[in-house]
Amino acid sequence: MRGAVLHAPRDVRVEDRPDPTIEKPTDAVIRLAATCVCGSDLWPYRGIEPISGPTPMGHEYVGVVEEVGHQVTTLTPGQFVVGSFFASDNTCEICQAGHQSRCVHAELMGAIGTQSQYARIPLADGTLVATPEMPSEDLVPSLLAASDVLGTGWFAAVAAEAGPGKTVAVVGDGAVGLLGVLAAQQLGAERIVIFSRHESRQALARQFGATDIITSRGDDGVAEIKELTNGLGAHSVIEAVGTQESMMQAIRATRPGGHVGYVGVSHDVSLPGGELFFSAVHLHGGPAPVRRFLPDLIDRIYTRRIDPGRVFDLTLPLQQAAEGYQAMDQRRATKVLLTV
Amino acid sequence: MRGAVLHAPRDVRVEDRPDPTIEKPTDAVIRLAATCVCGSDLWPYRGIEPISGPTPMGHEYVGVVEEVGHQVTTLTPGQFVVGSFFASDNTCEICQAGHQSRCVHAELMGAIGTQSQYARIPLADGTLVATPEMPSEDLVPSLLAASDVLGTGWFAAVAAEAGPGKTVAVVGDGAVGLLGVLAAQQLGAERIVIFSRHESRQALARQFGATDIITSRGDDGVAEIKELTNGLGAHSVIEAVGTQESMMQAIRATRPGGHVGYVGVSHDVSLPGGELFFSAVHLHGGPAPVRRFLPDLIDRIYTRRIDPGRVFDLTLPLQQAAEGYQAMDQRRATKVLLTV
Repeated sequence: MRGAVLHAPRDVRVEDRPDPTIEKPTDAVIRLAATCVCGSDLWPYRGIEPISGPTPMGHEYVGVVEEVGHQVTTLTPGQFVVGSFFASDNTCEICQAGHQSRCVHAELMGAIGTQSQYARIPLADGTLVATPEMPSEDLVPSLLAASDVLGTGWFAAVAAEAGPGKTVAVVGDGAVGLLGVLAAQQLGAERIVIFSRHESRQALARQFGATDIITSRGDDGVAEIKELTNGLGAHSVIEAVGTQESMMQAIRATRPGGHVGYVGVSHDVSLPGGELFFSAVHLHGGPAPVRRFLPDLIDRIYTRRIDPGRVFDLTLPLQQAAEGYQAMDQRRATKVLLTV
Repeated sequence: MRGAVLHAPRDVRVEDRPDPTIEKPTDAVIRLAATCVCGSDLWPYRGIEPISGPTPMGHEYVGVVEEVGHQVTTLTPGQFVVGSFFASDNTCEICQAGHQSRCVHAELMGAIGTQSQYARIPLADGTLVATPEMPSEDLVPSLLAASDVLGTGWFAAVAAEAGPGKTVAVVGDGAVGLLGVLAAQQLGAERIVIFSRHESRQALARQFGATDIITSRGDDGVAEIKELTNGLGAHSVIEAVGTQESMMQAIRATRPGGHVGYVGVSHDVSLPGGELFFSAVHLHGGPAPVRRFLPDLIDRIYTRRIDPGRVFDLTLPLQQAAEGYQAMDQRRATKVLLTV
């Protein structure tokens, strides 16, 4: 099969990779319908996260079940499925508590690489959620978004306790931040403020439910959100970047007793204990347990209450994955969908 | 009046201080019945937190209302009252959400100094809670504990979401940690594990409801709590020390998706963002909003469901405050009560 492989910083090639097979009786093999490039893929692409050799890429996926292992009981070939970037058994104590990305048997899909024609999905019963029927073409981008960026933005909004009567602020206007806006809107937030300097992203944020845009960053941005909230700060802040600046901006933008939901993968972040202590905020985040939200998200997509697929602003065939990486690296695209 | 004043590291003197008066119409002046020495008083006592000159000490207090300002409506002279180490209006948005230690008008009682015969209490209506009647002598230590160490341990247990079916671990066997055990027990925790190497503290922890004692610390302690919990870690961890080691021990002792309630005043703590991210824990803490819990705690004390006053293992007259500091500094006492 064909699949995207990172050979060195900025060197992504779509090349022949071995066809995946059932390795364990709990595996499934799916034929990808679509996959995409993640903001987190840019870390190794840019050489900030080192790679040890040619690395298959991708961890977001929707597709059709091709084959299942003999212990898989809930899925059959031909079903259309969505899964998370962590495979999980969905039965252990941690999964049952809703933290499937830290399942005791968790496997990182990024290590398998789903920017490819086929993919092996471990723990298929726990990982994959079948859609009610074959989706119409226009639903595929939204279902693909559910696999990571929507699920992650949704988790951030839940972790930040977005809801009725709340002012929610969003740090980061990438796909996850934008879908954090959508999640906050769906969860009933009263006011949704996004920090953004990009006109096209601001426009999409407004479509997703943002009520206010702040173009300042760091402590200036914090001062603006305080001005909007009687000097108190937002009730709920979604952090979707993962840098020291964005984390501190998120913590400082939150009122005492408020909630920060942080999902930007941490890079060189170090939180000052004293400031965190006196901030009195709640902090929760990490790799999103997307599996927790998938059934609900799929339902919202099928009933057309949400259209998260709009975050994809560039669609390319898998064979042109390298161009997709380049477009995201150069911020010419927010999120690139790869058709398979 | 007489009051304790820190002149230099390890130089506490009880000397004449000006009698407090009503400065604002929302003030009250109370005559102390009892006060005490806090673990956090040891930071300046040991010279780790610098002082700029002679500093009145103390922020824990119970006593009788002596005089009230003309805007005070809920209190009258002669009432016995308990208050928190933060004065708060208890009406602002932050207070109403239960975060009174970050009240928009918060005043630190430590800046007033309650190791004294009398004290001015700002925002008396919001800060003080009157007891149902004059307490019998034996209830006074417990009411005094409610003012800080019990309220703080209770907040930590609530922040850690201690409750039925949960395994709660407690890092720190000082008065706050011990009362965190008591709080977890009252909140219905199934299993309560305390990290402690001191026999007398272990014994008190058992009386307060601890089911297990771990004598190892740091990563060895973490390994032991994991052994007790199917390799997962505790659901809820109370952190009551405030050092880098104790914070990391608390975070690592918590299962993915679990809750850390941290109340040890942070000193030179820096939390590694990446580890925190992948830990997937909830983190909440800071200076405890003791006022939130006071009515309930007073009720539990009056109905003799709890006896938190047992944490005081040395009682001295205020005049001997210096000996009290020394005893706590040298760990000869867990918590020193000063009679006034």
